[in-house]
Amino acid sequence: MMTTKDKIIAIDLGGTSAKLAIVSTNGEILQKWSVNTVVLNGGKAIVPNLIESIQERMDLYQLTTEDFLGIGMGSPGTVNHIDLTVIGAYNLNWVETQNVGEQFSQAFKLPFYLDNDANIAALGEQRHGSGDNASDVVMVTLGTGVGGGIIVDGQIVHGNSGAAGEIGHMTIDKDSGIACTCGKIGCLEALASATGLMNLTREYSEEYSGDSEIKQRIDNGDELTAKDIFEASEQHDMFAKHVVEQFGEYLGLGCSHIVNMLNPSKIILGGGVAQAGEYLRELVARHCDNYIFPALKGKTEIVIASLGNDAALLGAAELVNDGKLVG
Amino acid sequence: MMTTKDKIIAIDLGGTSAKLAIVSTNGEILQKWSVNTVVLNGGKAIVPNLIESIQERMDLYQLTTEDFLGIGMGSPGTVNHIDLTVIGAYNLNWVETQNVGEQFSQAFKLPFYLDNDANIAALGEQRHGSGDNASDVVMVTLGTGVGGGIIVDGQIVHGNSGAAGEIGHMTIDKDSGIACTCGKIGCLEALASATGLMNLTREYSEEYSGDSEIKQRIDNGDELTAKDIFEASEQHDMFAKHVVEQFGEYLGLGCSHIVNMLNPSKIILGGGVAQAGEYLRELVARHCDNYIFPALKGKTEIVIASLGNDAALLGAAELVNDGKLVG
Repeated sequence: MMTTKDKIIAIDLGGTSAKLAIVSTNGEILQKWSVNTVVLNGGKAIVPNLIESIQERMDLYQLTTEDFLGIGMGSPGTVNHIDLTVIGAYNLNWVETQNVGEQFSQAFKLPFYLDNDANIAALGEQRHGSGDNASDVVMVTLGTGVGGGIIVDGQIVHGNSGAAGEIGHMTIDKDSGIACTCGKIGCLEALASATGLMNLTREYSEEYSGDSEIKQRIDNGDELTAKDIFEASEQHDMFAKHVVEQFGEYLGLGCSHIVNMLNPSKIILGGGVAQAGEYLRELVARHCDNYIFPALKGKTEIVIASLGNDAALLGAAELVNDGKLVG
Repeated sequence: MMTTKDKIIAIDLGGTSAKLAIVSTNGEILQKWSVNTVVLNGGKAIVPNLIESIQERMDLYQLTTEDFLGIGMGSPGTVNHIDLTVIGAYNLNWVETQNVGEQFSQAFKLPFYLDNDANIAALGEQRHGSGDNASDVVMVTLGTGVGGGIIVDGQIVHGNSGAAGEIGHMTIDKDSGIACTCGKIGCLEALASATGLMNLTREYSEEYSGDSEIKQRIDNGDELTAKDIFEASEQHDMFAKHVVEQFGEYLGLGCSHIVNMLNPSKIILGGGVAQAGEYLRELVARHCDNYIFPALKGKTEIVIASLGNDAALLGAAELVNDGKLVG
């Protein structure tokens, strides 16, 4: 029987679960499932569990390694995409170096590719989502933190120690007095993530004395989310509007640094906060425009991510496609 | 007679003169000369003059196109490295699109490559100077303005419209009140070029009342240069020291954006201001370190450019070497 090697195994490893998929080489998700991430005992069971789950699924679908071009995986932490190792993925309890590539190579006779989770999400959106396959694209993921993935000439930018794309830790307002989890003051992540929005909300609530339902709820000690603040701003709550404008100014300034430095076709806003959609997009684009070099105006489009969680799976699969291209 | 095609013609076009060289394919400058840039009449004579000068030199050294691998050139303005055109090079009077590549191709049966002057200087330093041939390097040129050239994976980053590397126009202090020539407020160029240093000097002189020779010279209406301010700072003039520290903080913050985003091996400081050497290097590295993501500390070295004007010529030659590599 002829085998075609037209399928890829894609893995998006996270702190609570790993998402897995069988993806066609042209980017169609054929099967998708997930596995709990067991972080006990230094996360030693994580990779064996993934391997076991893949073997089960291959049996279930009557597939063999002959059907696959390779395995592509995204991981949190500091990923060495050449040695295929991960270190410092604290939400996995992976403190020391993990030889992820070695474990996969022993289990499957298949090429294995590994990259950082923010990078593969950027690659997925660039190739199959809002990136429209443009060669230069930057993805900014707005969740609890601010992540970044940079694509130049169609390829992930890794930098000299695999840590390029720390967009969330650019110092955007050193005078803000708002501390970041990294220990610095005024990082983009401390000002313009979901957490950052709440930081700005708390700060402004101390000085605001006008009429505002949101402000009342804060004073009542209600737990608010980024979504609540954005919705109140859209409904013209003046307190929320001020906070969201400040958030937009910070994020717009951060995006302008990306535009001035890299002149990408698109900046793709993803993550939970990007569910605010067009309201967020217009906000960020408007502020960004104030800070970009005049000759660059209109050269970079700010767009909302379109693939959700599938971005990482499709990006992981693209690592395998690219590996095939280069050899 | 066998010909070897082991030579390259390199051109570094500037507003007052063009530097030209015959460079060996391994980066040795064999002959060097210059031609005045005639900007009259829309700069129409510039390219014909370059072509004539090259033909003269080839005759003089008894060389033919058979001895050359190609011609590489750097130009000010907005360069399209694919169409081989230049637009908006105002110091050359090139306001409209100039078909530079077409003119060279008609004159010589040789491959012709063209890029932005800041980009080829970065490529030259990366391959033959302080870049030590590291794959990821950013050059920051500190002259009248602040220029930038970004090398990722050994190649120039162009961005979607050929304008990547506008490092000088990142907004570094929007509250500074210092206007940039581009029309924005608080660009890196307005704060941390030679011009920027004088802007900071003037601003601080209005509020400084202590003892300072530099301050006295300003009050006397003496014309001061960036070199004067740096020298006075090294000699512990308290006024100059304050200004230079502020300059270093702005430039360090700008460099930290580069580090956090691109994680390069090196940031190379070039241009006239970089003649301050180790004093400048230590100043910028110290301030930069305060603003980089902790995990990135120690991963990027800040160094002073080593090739001077030859960087651009060697970078222009490398365009030809790379052209050969890809096809």
